[in-house]
Amino acid sequence: MKSSPRVVVVGAGFGGLAATRALKGANVRVLVIDKQNHHLFQPLLYQVATAALSPADIAWPIRRILRRQQNAEVLMAEVTGIDPLNKRVLLGDRSEEYDYLVLASGATHSYFGHDEWAPYAPGLKEIVDATHIRRRILMAFECAEAVNDAVHRQKFLTFVVVGGGPTGVEMAGTMSELARKALAADFRHIDLSTARVILLEAGSRLLSSFPESLSEYVRQALADLGVDVQTGVAVTGCDAEGVDTAAGRIDAATVIWAAGVEASPVARWLDVPADRAGRVAVAEDLSVPGLDGVYIVGDAALYRHGTEKPLPGVAPVAKQQGAYVGAIIASRVSGEPKPAPFRYKDSGQLATIGRRAAVVDFGRLRFTGWFAWWLWGIVHIYFLISVRSRLLVAIQWLWSYLTFDRGARLITPDRPPAAKPGASSDHA
Amino acid sequence: MKSSPRVVVVGAGFGGLAATRALKGANVRVLVIDKQNHHLFQPLLYQVATAALSPADIAWPIRRILRRQQNAEVLMAEVTGIDPLNKRVLLGDRSEEYDYLVLASGATHSYFGHDEWAPYAPGLKEIVDATHIRRRILMAFECAEAVNDAVHRQKFLTFVVVGGGPTGVEMAGTMSELARKALAADFRHIDLSTARVILLEAGSRLLSSFPESLSEYVRQALADLGVDVQTGVAVTGCDAEGVDTAAGRIDAATVIWAAGVEASPVARWLDVPADRAGRVAVAEDLSVPGLDGVYIVGDAALYRHGTEKPLPGVAPVAKQQGAYVGAIIASRVSGEPKPAPFRYKDSGQLATIGRRAAVVDFGRLRFTGWFAWWLWGIVHIYFLISVRSRLLVAIQWLWSYLTFDRGARLITPDRPPAAKPGASSDHA
Repeated sequence: MKSSPRVVVVGAGFGGLAATRALKGANVRVLVIDKQNHHLFQPLLYQVATAALSPADIAWPIRRILRRQQNAEVLMAEVTGIDPLNKRVLLGDRSEEYDYLVLASGATHSYFGHDEWAPYAPGLKEIVDATHIRRRILMAFECAEAVNDAVHRQKFLTFVVVGGGPTGVEMAGTMSELARKALAADFRHIDLSTARVILLEAGSRLLSSFPESLSEYVRQALADLGVDVQTGVAVTGCDAEGVDTAAGRIDAATVIWAAGVEASPVARWLDVPADRAGRVAVAEDLSVPGLDGVYIVGDAALYRHGTEKPLPGVAPVAKQQGAYVGAIIASRVSGEPKPAPFRYKDSGQLATIGRRAAVVDFGRLRFTGWFAWWLWGIVHIYFLISVRSRLLVAIQWLWSYLTFDRGARLITPDRPPAAKPGASSDHA
Repeated sequence: MKSSPRVVVVGAGFGGLAATRALKGANVRVLVIDKQNHHLFQPLLYQVATAALSPADIAWPIRRILRRQQNAEVLMAEVTGIDPLNKRVLLGDRSEEYDYLVLASGATHSYFGHDEWAPYAPGLKEIVDATHIRRRILMAFECAEAVNDAVHRQKFLTFVVVGGGPTGVEMAGTMSELARKALAADFRHIDLSTARVILLEAGSRLLSSFPESLSEYVRQALADLGVDVQTGVAVTGCDAEGVDTAAGRIDAATVIWAAGVEASPVARWLDVPADRAGRVAVAEDLSVPGLDGVYIVGDAALYRHGTEKPLPGVAPVAKQQGAYVGAIIASRVSGEPKPAPFRYKDSGQLATIGRRAAVVDFGRLRFTGWFAWWLWGIVHIYFLISVRSRLLVAIQWLWSYLTFDRGARLITPDRPPAAKPGASSDHA
């Protein structure tokens, strides 16, 4: 008797999980491979970076999520390549065979060819990035409190966010609130009304995927929070002391990178062409032309409806593509007719700026202000996994709302004192 | 006009915070120095290491705690020495003057002269230790699931806890529950009933500070949870593959050190003698004989009532000593008569083993079992700082109790990928 076909899903983000779940009833064996042990709710990662939430509030063990799906198993491992000829996923010194392969490995931040900026302008993709950024933001205030000369102090109290997309807007708004509200009473020597948060966007407006009227609202809401919004200003350099821009130098001890993303190296793994952002063009069923049984979903897929712009790298696209590919594979295995081509159903977009300020774009319906803000909160709590996380996040948001406080203001070093570099005995 | 006397408090643990708070109404300027930005509720740190709670649930910014105490300020810095002659605390390339000095810098884990064991057997003192241990425990299960040969697998499924004090008992009980209850359904290839948790204690019984009858209960309760308790077994070596003991070799990928503590280097800072555990003998008012205005409280102080055993390094001792020294300094500043010598009021001790199993020793009143366990939980929630933390911890404990689940099962690396060693631009 032939055993059931094997589906390997690389990446347990929104796309990979949706694909796996869509295969729940199918006669397949699913192997989910991820280099992390957890699925991360990335849209709220900036709240970890700004000390509002704890990592475990927005991340869940992949094994736990798939516990009851008996045809799925999970492997924590890092993909190093793919051998499409022999249908194997390479994982360093081992490999796993597949009949169907779903690549849902997402994207990481991109410095547009300037990787040397990375240490000075960290980006936000994984939990460890968020706790690292949290440490740098909070340390800047500690350093400002400790130094005596005004020039150094102002450098520590200047925060630059590069990139005016949703992450950049949310980071800038939250950081300004952090400085002006949450921390203001805790320091004795510095006046936090002198803290500057500067949001740099190379394009002509913020949140370019939203209608122009909403971009204007966002700019005004950020200005009301004290954020210095500069559009049309490209960054030309980053170092430990600040950034160089087309409009001049900004001295700042803390720079956050929210400017660009680059697909995970699926193109290199498959040895196929990619666009400038590293995405691989997929067919109308999201398969990779010329490779049998290989699909790409989410941020690493380049897909457009007809002559429209390619679909953006957002959670709803990844989820719908994942579910679609799961269904395609299920129908191929059971011999049912092939479903219609993938079609993205856009149900709108939301972004928050700060306390009682957000934008919601449901196509014809658009909201701003406190109603949009509540809607944003409710939608995000709804999308969290498990009742436990919903309770924890709701309580912490309510707490922050009532007290202006941040509950997770921890500065933790990257490495425990005992585990010195080179002396590590980690199993991994 | 002469300004108010300056009190420098080193360490914002239980002792340092109590001293600071006791100085609230006094005509002094208090400077609290800590190398961390947060006060940590150490008694629950093992719950972070075993994925039950998040770090921010049991740690609070020192600045936030002291926000309303206008005569106190906080400096995040590491003490490198003390100059008692000129009354200055040295902080690397800067220093702070004091009129009164309260040393409340606590203790760290000690390997009894075998610091080379540290990378293989991490101890539990700070948040970063807890997240590091959490990662190693969870990674061991991942590795066991991924390997194919039985010998390696068993090594990954063997966990050794060294030291049968409260931390060791709590770690061992919780780890056994983690393996047998929380994780059992999440793996497809390993049988977690074969996981072994071994608790090694060099002395003749567990929890030696408790009455002997309670030690016997604890041993039985741990055995019921599947923990292999070995008393009278000293560790003679630790390496990446396991531990050597007087009773033979144990192959284990994960070893947790809960065996001994060593005072922070107050003796070296002050250039005074210390006992074997690094503690400095203090006078009956907790001052250091021969040094004007210098006090030691908590784990670094060696203090005994008459000919009794020295007071143990536990939170209630540190709190009472801190409050006492705060009062002593306040009375010296205001010219009031000196209070009576310090006298520790022992209000009992509690320790938990696992679900519905704990021991409480209130002197004549002793409890075990579910009542002790509920009492333990209520007392610990009561001692947390802020309503927010109490709510979050209560919800997570209730959740774990009802579902047998652990909410914070995150494996996070020590260092973000972008911030490579040597390329860091941290402000600190």
